[in-house]
Amino acid sequence: MLKIGIDAMGGDFAPEAVVKGAVMALDAIDGESRIVLFGDNGKIEECLEAENCPADRFTIVHTTEVIEMGDHPAMAFKSKPDSSIAVGFGHLAKGAIDGFASAGSTGAMMVGSMYVAKPIKGVIRPTISTTLPTIAGTQALMMDVGLNVDCKPEVLSQYGLIGSIYAESVLGIKNPRVALLNIGEEEAKGNALTQAAYQAMKADSDKGLYNFAGNVESSHIFSGKIADVIICDGFVGNIALKMAEGLYVINHKMGTTNPFWDAMNYENVGGTPVLGINSAVMIGHGKSTPKAIKNMILSMERSIRTHVTEKIREAFKDIDSVEA
Amino acid sequence: MLKIGIDAMGGDFAPEAVVKGAVMALDAIDGESRIVLFGDNGKIEECLEAENCPADRFTIVHTTEVIEMGDHPAMAFKSKPDSSIAVGFGHLAKGAIDGFASAGSTGAMMVGSMYVAKPIKGVIRPTISTTLPTIAGTQALMMDVGLNVDCKPEVLSQYGLIGSIYAESVLGIKNPRVALLNIGEEEAKGNALTQAAYQAMKADSDKGLYNFAGNVESSHIFSGKIADVIICDGFVGNIALKMAEGLYVINHKMGTTNPFWDAMNYENVGGTPVLGINSAVMIGHGKSTPKAIKNMILSMERSIRTHVTEKIREAFKDIDSVEA
Repeated sequence: MLKIGIDAMGGDFAPEAVVKGAVMALDAIDGESRIVLFGDNGKIEECLEAENCPADRFTIVHTTEVIEMGDHPAMAFKSKPDSSIAVGFGHLAKGAIDGFASAGSTGAMMVGSMYVAKPIKGVIRPTISTTLPTIAGTQALMMDVGLNVDCKPEVLSQYGLIGSIYAESVLGIKNPRVALLNIGEEEAKGNALTQAAYQAMKADSDKGLYNFAGNVESSHIFSGKIADVIICDGFVGNIALKMAEGLYVINHKMGTTNPFWDAMNYENVGGTPVLGINSAVMIGHGKSTPKAIKNMILSMERSIRTHVTEKIREAFKDIDSVEA
Repeated sequence: MLKIGIDAMGGDFAPEAVVKGAVMALDAIDGESRIVLFGDNGKIEECLEAENCPADRFTIVHTTEVIEMGDHPAMAFKSKPDSSIAVGFGHLAKGAIDGFASAGSTGAMMVGSMYVAKPIKGVIRPTISTTLPTIAGTQALMMDVGLNVDCKPEVLSQYGLIGSIYAESVLGIKNPRVALLNIGEEEAKGNALTQAAYQAMKADSDKGLYNFAGNVESSHIFSGKIADVIICDGFVGNIALKMAEGLYVINHKMGTTNPFWDAMNYENVGGTPVLGINSAVMIGHGKSTPKAIKNMILSMERSIRTHVTEKIREAFKDIDSVEA
């Protein structure tokens, strides 16, 4: 049985929104999967009652503390050992759950990812990614979207390998086209980082590690024409992602809708996987609605079922780690 | 009399689109201004005839060569001394015109900007910028949008001063809010470059050079809430600009319109000023339509009339140049 750990106390509308989303996910996940909720037993049961859902459809791990948004992530992890996030990572470490997701403190989730789950051997820098809709009807994976803001070229080329495995396994894209986000299509374009990363990615591609499609300009992020996996450093990725979010809000306020902008709704994305660590971990938007939580649980299930973590570990088995 | 130099041979639809745009501009510019067209006399007069416009409404400087998009910019500048762009810059250098604009080879325009017009003393790196619409109804100025892709912090803080002067003079924004494009609002956020640039811009603001408004996240580029002038390096700016263009195209294809996206049409922007050099120079989109050309001429007229170049030169008079 596959066990999906969810922080019931994480997010602006927890635990109600999380529990509601978990209930919504019940019908969509495989019968062999089980959702494990971490949080205040009494509150979770109250929410389940409000949803007319029997408590035995879930496994509940009672926790008494919550890491708040204002807490210092690393300190809170130690000072609140019975918090839903700390206990969730504890369960992950001992193999009692197969993955852990939270819409709570991003900082605490990263502390757990880096110090409990830990980076996979050979991975210089774990990364966070997001899926984006394209007008071709496909999804594109973009990484990094905010974690490593000053990258060396070899960090970006490793992202190419990690992203390729994730896109093939979880998004179901065969032999995904991995491209470098750049300010021109030609090989020589870019800043010092992307010029060097281009060469590193070309070398990876020559070794057969993944299918490098060259540079992709930002005008093609959402076209689906050039790339299935879009590689950039965390600064540039965060700028692109938040700009898209800002434009989504503007369209929404103006009452402008079309299928593309509807697909851009973060509720449909449902969480940011932390990749390159030894477990399946996903971070949700603080504002996560039940629908967003449901989609995060479904992504998490796909990640676990398709063994993404194991595949990435296998791919990095023979790669010498370069400390960056 | 104010003399606005325009390359009649520049752009994908030249000379027809350029001449048509120049004719459209005639009614909108001040009676004291005169448009000087550089290009093939015969072709220009043919176009004017097609527009039923008397040739004497313009000054025409006959040139026999054209720098093509495929030409090497620096070499073409020398090998085609009678090209519209080379002759245009020659006129600019001797003061026969007050500004020069072209929708032709961006590379050749930059060669002219850097080697004929030349950087203003004290300016480490001239820059190119663009104006963007905001839902607040104001315009925002973003710089750099593609020229200097690896910037030192002091280059960005100088952009702040240059951008502030341009926004106040040409866009008519009083005491413009100059903000640093970053991945968080707090002072300590960002990558190594933006963290250092924040301190440099704060120091500039303390000296009264301009009104530094702190960091602006990309979700607020188009909101108008935080910034009138948005400062970033040329890599990040180009990514943001082309992403906006890509989303504009997607909306357009889907038949989605609203006042915000209509304002995003590059035709309304009408050209990218090169700032920090000793003359008013503007580069148009290769695909420039007559409307785009008209708006480029109007921007150019405002730049000349408000003495932006002189104001920037004055502001940098007492600043020691730091070679970067």
